[in-house]
Amino acid sequence: MPKFFVPAEAIQANEIVLTAQNAAHANVLRLRPGEEVIACDGCGTDYRCTVSTVQADRVCLTVREAVPSCSEPCVRASIYMAYAKADKLEHVIQKATELGAYEIVAFPSDRCVSRPDDKSLAKKLERWQKIAASAAEQSGRGTVPQVVTLSSFRAAVARALQAELAVNFYENEHARTFSAALADGLPHTVSLMTGPEGGYTEAEVAYAAAQGMQTCTLGRRILRCETAPLCALSALMYACGEF
Amino acid sequence: MPKFFVPAEAIQANEIVLTAQNAAHANVLRLRPGEEVIACDGCGTDYRCTVSTVQADRVCLTVREAVPSCSEPCVRASIYMAYAKADKLEHVIQKATELGAYEIVAFPSDRCVSRPDDKSLAKKLERWQKIAASAAEQSGRGTVPQVVTLSSFRAAVARALQAELAVNFYENEHARTFSAALADGLPHTVSLMTGPEGGYTEAEVAYAAAQGMQTCTLGRRILRCETAPLCALSALMYACGEF
Repeated sequence: MPKFFVPAEAIQANEIVLTAQNAAHANVLRLRPGEEVIACDGCGTDYRCTVSTVQADRVCLTVREAVPSCSEPCVRASIYMAYAKADKLEHVIQKATELGAYEIVAFPSDRCVSRPDDKSLAKKLERWQKIAASAAEQSGRGTVPQVVTLSSFRAAVARALQAELAVNFYENEHARTFSAALADGLPHTVSLMTGPEGGYTEAEVAYAAAQGMQTCTLGRRILRCETAPLCALSALMYACGEF
Repeated sequence: MPKFFVPAEAIQANEIVLTAQNAAHANVLRLRPGEEVIACDGCGTDYRCTVSTVQADRVCLTVREAVPSCSEPCVRASIYMAYAKADKLEHVIQKATELGAYEIVAFPSDRCVSRPDDKSLAKKLERWQKIAASAAEQSGRGTVPQVVTLSSFRAAVARALQAELAVNFYENEHARTFSAALADGLPHTVSLMTGPEGGYTEAEVAYAAAQGMQTCTLGRRILRCETAPLCALSALMYACGEF
């Protein structure tokens, strides 16, 4: 069933009006009066609706019932990904949203080959947030993950440590496993941090560990920078009983 | 350290000669005499070597020692993926190889929007196998996963059932989890099957279940056809103690 995220002001007692991109999307889907759709406030409530009228720039929905979104995972997973080439970061934003990430945080690190300048960042952030919104709709999420950018590796470590469990995945860590890090009881909030194309410097890994992050392996194979966060997130969701 | 898969005939007692694409790749990497590389027979043995001479079409390596590849997972995971648009299948071949898949099997199903004809299949299979080989080298695998194509969904189900555990992931399955399927003891061989862009038909899911495959969920979010197999594979590797 098609799903649309709508701003709070679009939600009236018994009616929701799709405008702008939502209306355009509804027209692309060739929605007709009588069809069923879901409108979601992006804050955990799904509105089950019936299409009442369709115009090019305005699609009216009649609300049948409001129900809590049931598709949000029980664990809040924050993906911390060092800046990578644009298509890789966008790939991770889309896939991490599908897989249930709470937020995606991008940050620079020493060996990043790509880092946006301040001038282009606002525009890129807008684009990244749209990718997250679109993936959230397609996968039936109850919220849209926020995409956040930070200005330094140290800021990323400090923010990641606010979660109950903060893990830094490093290809030269061979002993400590992610399952060992989860063995002390499943956390409600987790930060999963991965490095750039060129890998972390040893100094970065040492700094994150000294601050309190756990350094873990993702197995004996070298994962690409866009594969590692999605592998870790999939494993976390599995470990937390999501599937 | 750079890794090259070499044919058996290239491996002499104390010398390995890189030719053709391997030699070209060594030149792209600007390897110089004295540098260390790994040559792998693709059957589980790594040869630790030192570069002795470099020419455009011929790079000679001196073998220092032969050691068993330690990067192969303990579980043999076969990925069964319904044909998807070319870029999605290629994406899964690359990523599943990184994540430790034993083989990738592509098959047609009712709602596949894309299925190659016999004429183009041989050429595509060659391309897909190259993608697997390249990903195996980059991720440090000890073997190159085979890419296999089958001509029908029924053939895929029959082949998948040869594994100790054969799971079919279906977005309309909400009760049976993958962890429940793994709860009876970790298998040595597993088939992980996922559907096409448009999803399976109910008849297909019923057929696979009647033949003996377990129908499982991958969580309450709808995953794209290229996300689902990699999510399942990541979870399996985690469950089997790989990380």
